Amino acid sequence: MKDKTRILVTGGDMRQIYCAEKLSAVYDTYVMGFPAGSIPEKTNLKQAVTDSNGFYDFVVLPVPPLDENGSISAPFSDTEINPDTIRKLLKPDGVVFVGKYDKKLSDIFPDNKIIDYMKCEDLSLKNAIPTAEGAVEIALNELPVTLNGLEVLIVGMGRIGTSLAEILKGFGSNITVAVHNEKGSAKARMAGIRPVFTDKMDTDYKLVFNTVPEMIFNTDLLKRFSDDTLFIDLASKPGGIDFKSATILGKKVIWALGIPGKTAPVTSGEFIAETIAGIIRERSFS
Amino acid sequence: MKDKTRILVTGGDMRQIYCAEKLSAVYDTYVMGFPAGSIPEKTNLKQAVTDSNGFYDFVVLPVPPLDENGSISAPFSDTEINPDTIRKLLKPDGVVFVGKYDKKLSDIFPDNKIIDYMKCEDLSLKNAIPTAEGAVEIALNELPVTLNGLEVLIVGMGRIGTSLAEILKGFGSNITVAVHNEKGSAKARMAGIRPVFTDKMDTDYKLVFNTVPEMIFNTDLLKRFSDDTLFIDLASKPGGIDFKSATILGKKVIWALGIPGKTAPVTSGEFIAETIAGIIRERSFS
Amino acid sequence: MKDKTRILVTGGDMRQIYCAEKLSAVYDTYVMGFPAGSIPEKTNLKQAVTDSNGFYDFVVLPVPPLDENGSISAPFSDTEINPDTIRKLLKPDGVVFVGKYDKKLSDIFPDNKIIDYMKCEDLSLKNAIPTAEGAVEIALNELPVTLNGLEVLIVGMGRIGTSLAEILKGFGSNITVAVHNEKGSAKARMAGIRPVFTDKMDTDYKLVFNTVPEMIFNTDLLKRFSDDTLFIDLASKPGGIDFKSATILGKKVIWALGIPGKTAPVTSGEFIAETIAGIIRERSFS
Amino acid sequence: MKDKTRILVTGGDMRQIYCAEKLSAVYDTYVMGFPAGSIPEKTNLKQAVTDSNGFYDFVVLPVPPLDENGSISAPFSDTEINPDTIRKLLKPDGVVFVGKYDKKLSDIFPDNKIIDYMKCEDLSLKNAIPTAEGAVEIALNELPVTLNGLEVLIVGMGRIGTSLAEILKGFGSNITVAVHNEKGSAKARMAGIRPVFTDKMDTDYKLVFNTVPEMIFNTDLLKRFSDDTLFIDLASKPGGIDFKSATILGKKVIWALGIPGKTAPVTSGEFIAETIAGIIRERSFS
Repeated sequence: MKDKTRILVTGGDMRQIYCAEKLSAVYDTYVMGFPAGSIPEKTNLKQAVTDSNGFYDFVVLPVPPLDENGSISAPFSDTEINPDTIRKLLKPDGVVFVGKYDKKLSDIFPDNKIIDYMKCEDLSLKNAIPTAEGAVEIALNELPVTLNGLEVLIVGMGRIGTSLAEILKGFGSNITVAVHNEKGSAKARMAGIRPVFTDKMDTDYKLVFNTVPEMIFNTDLLKRFSDDTLFIDLASKPGGIDFKSATILGKKVIWALGIPGKTAPVTSGEFIAETIAGIIRERSFS
Repeated sequence: MKDKTRILVTGGDMRQIYCAEKLSAVYDTYVMGFPAGSIPEKTNLKQAVTDSNGFYDFVVLPVPPLDENGSISAPFSDTEINPDTIRKLLKPDGVVFVGKYDKKLSDIFPDNKIIDYMKCEDLSLKNAIPTAEGAVEIALNELPVTLNGLEVLIVGMGRIGTSLAEILKGFGSNITVAVHNEKGSAKARMAGIRPVFTDKMDTDYKLVFNTVPEMIFNTDLLKRFSDDTLFIDLASKPGGIDFKSATILGKKVIWALGIPGKTAPVTSGEFIAETIAGIIRERSFS
Repeated sequence: MKDKTRILVTGGDMRQIYCAEKLSAVYDTYVMGFPAGSIPEKTNLKQAVTDSNGFYDFVVLPVPPLDENGSISAPFSDTEINPDTIRKLLKPDGVVFVGKYDKKLSDIFPDNKIIDYMKCEDLSLKNAIPTAEGAVEIALNELPVTLNGLEVLIVGMGRIGTSLAEILKGFGSNITVAVHNEKGSAKARMAGIRPVFTDKMDTDYKLVFNTVPEMIFNTDLLKRFSDDTLFIDLASKPGGIDFKSATILGKKVIWALGIPGKTAPVTSGEFIAETIAGIIRERSFS
Repeated sequence: MKDKTRILVTGGDMRQIYCAEKLSAVYDTYVMGFPAGSIPEKTNLKQAVTDSNGFYDFVVLPVPPLDENGSISAPFSDTEINPDTIRKLLKPDGVVFVGKYDKKLSDIFPDNKIIDYMKCEDLSLKNAIPTAEGAVEIALNELPVTLNGLEVLIVGMGRIGTSLAEILKGFGSNITVAVHNEKGSAKARMAGIRPVFTDKMDTDYKLVFNTVPEMIFNTDLLKRFSDDTLFIDLASKPGGIDFKSATILGKKVIWALGIPGKTAPVTSGEFIAETIAGIIRERSFS
């Protein structure tokens, strides 16, 4: 028996469609702003009803929710989606899910609860998987050598570092993890990886993944690496690799952000749906 | 150049000696209450000076620190070790490291700081490794089948569950992890393991490791498992398996506590030393 | 519909019973020489008919088939099992499966085909799994340190070496494989393990598994290892570690043979049954 | 002390340069037909001497050795390389290494030994690694879902299948291996993977790697897979997937051949150099 809860999913890229598709297995789910061809053939999704005020219990906005004009960010849509339209369609006590909180949203939806799903711990944990896979994809595409037998440094043993280590063990890379403290060291050992402390790390690596949002790779440190070392920075801005120094020194650096949506939009959209469904369930909204 | 800090290590089992041995690489380390034969041949350890009051900066007591008589727990020692003697040997502002806090200690050392190293997060993390290895050792010893291809259930995806999963993947077991929430589910996926929610788990397993200190395996659930399923309960008391029901039903259950000290006393003692050294360093005692 | 082929399984240890049990899922299977209590409660196994000559299509003898008196090796049986009795029960063109060929068998069964199942490649491959698990069980039982982080040397990258590497990767050991040639080196790399050539190997290991039946560890080489290194020799006689030298030098060596039947009799017996069933099938006996 | 053996490396792509570069660490190595910019800056490589007949002990030709005009296959060279020129530069008893034997070579080098290094077992083994990595790279690039948690089928448990399984375990895929016989089944179990027999396999997979050069995926079988299943065929021609049927049915199939040279030219070239050096060593040519 299907849940009667009505959800409107609007804006965003392919992720948003797969999020809607997954939600539609449980909830009465509507989409707005996607061309017909982008929606799966066999689907429970319905085109949004746009003339019934207070129709939806929830609205799901994308990552990020708004574009530079203050409209709903909707790269696939031919027409602009006005956030005020969305507010009217939402029930007075309806909830807004957004992919990254933006101050303007509080002005647009003054009476509604706004929940940033990107801040949920289980989504961060899950997103570590597509992020690590995307980072390895980049490395495979860029490097003229095999990952097998390669000297690889992972900086940080958090979620993404742990996921990377797991994948690279399968490739048979020679992995070292740079950590800040005994806790990081313990986590590395648990994963069967050799830890070194960040301030004592050597530089004989051909591939470096940075996952720590602290400036670690400054001019001095960068100079000590070989010119053909590939750096992939996965840390959120400002990242851990000095952009200016790396450019001057001619280092090969790839700043890789927002990987999940690019490399695995289906999985990534489904993760968002699972998180939203989890919140709806736990709060006994439904 | 050696640190001049003086540490007295006393009581306990083999772990305590290896802890002392490791500390002696950095600090001026003394032991009390160990027969000569139990100390490694080439060592920096010194027999404790017992007549100089206020001689030591730190004293390291074992897990647990006291026996039923209120003496220092010292199974290897012929003579009783009186905690008052230890207090006198310690500097007035000396620090006492203990393996598990006991109220009596505050009476014995009223003026000294008492630190329970078993409560340090990095030690808990590290101890997950010998605990998981010891649990697998038990399974290998008990089972007449290979772990390869075996249907194994791990309850809980914390430190010990994660370590167990890592090891059992190497054996090629068919692993399922029972988790309580989306976070546990995400951690299982990161490790490449199939998660199920605890309340929906099936019972076709030949080997079950419980790591969660909550009563999960009650009479009803236990009944649904095969009679030749082996349960290994690693959760601290009261554990997660109903003792009485398991006995009545004739289930094969092993309650495995304090594994690190039994199965890997050297590694385990070294972990304690690393934790103590970390605390000394971070507090700038030395 | 059950196969009408009649198989008699006699002699041997627990493995033999589990072999019979597994065969009974497909064939009409009888046992002789096992006390009632050793047979599973719910079973299709039948006690052997001993008075019908030429009744059985196949007879399965254990590993090894005969004891020192020339009787069927049957440690569980109160009475002696005379091989002539077995021959009479077998059809004139019946086939004898044995666990290791013994010349005397050709005299006892002059007209029957005798097949040594221990020589089948798929059984050797499968037995690598319980052998490796048993070897790791020994290491866990003997060592006072964790396998995690331990420097381990595996000599040989054949079946057992490959299985050992797979398991030890899960433990997070620092594994090196000693190989003889480029092929072994390639296989090690495929498994993600660092290879060294046997003649250039260093000796900084705490645990050594030998899988190669050639005298590698002679006096000179043994001397270069630490006194607390544990050697586990898995190679069939004469093995790869010089017994006399090791004894004189006081090295810790464990000669581990026939592991599958000891550590995992159920799995091991089932593997034998699968091999026998495979032979019966492929030869279109049934 | 450097070996005086002179080797001429000519033709081919980047692999050939890295092969030459690696050989130059041991032998006196010359190159012909590569633009200056394609050769590493710090190198021992010398531009080939072209006017001394009988100068070289060995010549290394690429994969494949000849182009459609019968010249040395040399996509990087501005001018044609005439194989007769090469023959004259070679010693009368010099040896020709080629990447794939071509009948015409016997006419060109009637008096010289011709060795096909692609037929060496250790090179085939090693090439399984870049092949498997390249196949996973394709999957990562093509699929909008994560490999983690994905239902993956690997057909065949030879070198490439084994390498693929190793890598995909790291990703946490749900792997099944389709095998032909008990031996393949045993190898799958050793790797900790679930085997199924080819004639009984189900079709609930989102990703299929075929490594067996036999027509397995015919119209009937292909029809049973979902339309969004990605097939990657790694078997040498004619491969294992029916091209015509797959096209008509609109299946997503990628025929991936010669991966090592494309995805990992450095590693791939070094592998060739190791194989050639191994042959030179073993034959005591040097």
